[in-house]
Amino acid sequence: MSEEINSAQEAMLYTQRIAHLSKALWKAVEKDWQAWIKPFDLNINEHHVLSIAANLQGASISDIAKFGVMHVSTAFNFSKNLEERGLLSFSKRDDDKRNTYVEITEKGQALLKEIDDSFNSTNHAVLEGSLPLKEMYGKFPQYLELMAVIRNIYGDDFMDIFEKSFKDSENG
Amino acid sequence: MSEEINSAQEAMLYTQRIAHLSKALWKAVEKDWQAWIKPFDLNINEHHVLSIAANLQGASISDIAKFGVMHVSTAFNFSKNLEERGLLSFSKRDDDKRNTYVEITEKGQALLKEIDDSFNSTNHAVLEGSLPLKEMYGKFPQYLELMAVIRNIYGDDFMDIFEKSFKDSENG
Repeated sequence: MSEEINSAQEAMLYTQRIAHLSKALWKAVEKDWQAWIKPFDLNINEHHVLSIAANLQGASISDIAKFGVMHVSTAFNFSKNLEERGLLSFSKRDDDKRNTYVEITEKGQALLKEIDDSFNSTNHAVLEGSLPLKEMYGKFPQYLELMAVIRNIYGDDFMDIFEKSFKDSENG
Repeated sequence: MSEEINSAQEAMLYTQRIAHLSKALWKAVEKDWQAWIKPFDLNINEHHVLSIAANLQGASISDIAKFGVMHVSTAFNFSKNLEERGLLSFSKRDDDKRNTYVEITEKGQALLKEIDDSFNSTNHAVLEGSLPLKEMYGKFPQYLELMAVIRNIYGDDFMDIFEKSFKDSENG
C-alpha cells in the first residue's frame, strides 16, 4: 500500500472508531439522563434548554440552539413548551426585535433545583463507570483530547460558554 | 458546604459535563456519518449493522444489538431490511434454534467497500477537528480515559470486540 492510501485508510478507521465510541457513550448518557429527569415530565432537550437558560442569563433562542447543539426550530419548540409551563419567560429587546430572548423564571429555577436534588435517586452508569478513574487519579477524568476536538469543531465561543457554565455551578 | 455535599455536587457536575460533551460529539459524528452514507440509501443503524456483520463473521442478532448499542428489536428490524436488499443472509444453527445468525453477502461486502471508497467525497468535521492533534502528537488521539469509562459501562467483551474489529481492518 502506498503511504497516501495508508493514511487515507487510517483517517477512515479513526473516524469510524470515534463514531462507534461516541455512539456507545451517548447511548449510556441518554439512558441515565432520561431516567434522572423522568419524574419531572421533561425530556432531555427541555432539561438542556432550561439549564442553558439558567446559565446564560438572557439567552436568545439562537444561543440556546448553539450551546444545546440543536436546530433553531427545535430550540424554539422546546423553549415554547417550557414557556407554556411557566418555566421560562420570553421577551424581545428594543435594540433587537428579530430575536426572542428567554429567561428562566423562579418556577424554572425551583424545578432545576428539585431535579438536582434528586440526582442520587437514579442510577448513573456513566458516573459509576468513571469512579475507578477518579479513585486512581484523585479526580474525575478531564477528556482533554475530546475537549480539544470539540473546540475545533464548534469554536472557542462554544467551549468558553461550556467552561464558564460549569465554573459558575462549581462556585454557586 | 460539608465534604459529602461537595462531593455529591462534584459528581453531578461531572455527569452533566460529560453529558453535554457527549451530546456535542455525537451530533457532529451523526451529521458526518449521515452525509457520508446518504448516496447509498442506508441509515446510520443499517451501516453500523452491516459493518458489525462484516467484522463479527456469523454474528447473532443479539451480538449485533450488543456491539451496535441498540435494542434487539432495532437490530432485528434493520438486519431484516438489509436481508431484503440481499446485503445480509439469515440462518439458524442446528445447535441453537432460538437465535438468528447473520452473515454479510458478497453484495453486502461490495457495498461496504464502495462506501469506504467514497469516504473522501464528503466532509468529516470530527476528522478535521482531530487533525491538529494528529499533527502535534504524530498520531490520532487515543481517548484512553473515554475508552476506560466505556469499558467499565459495557464490559471487557464489548471493548475486546471493538478493538479487534479495528485491528482486523488495519491489517486487512
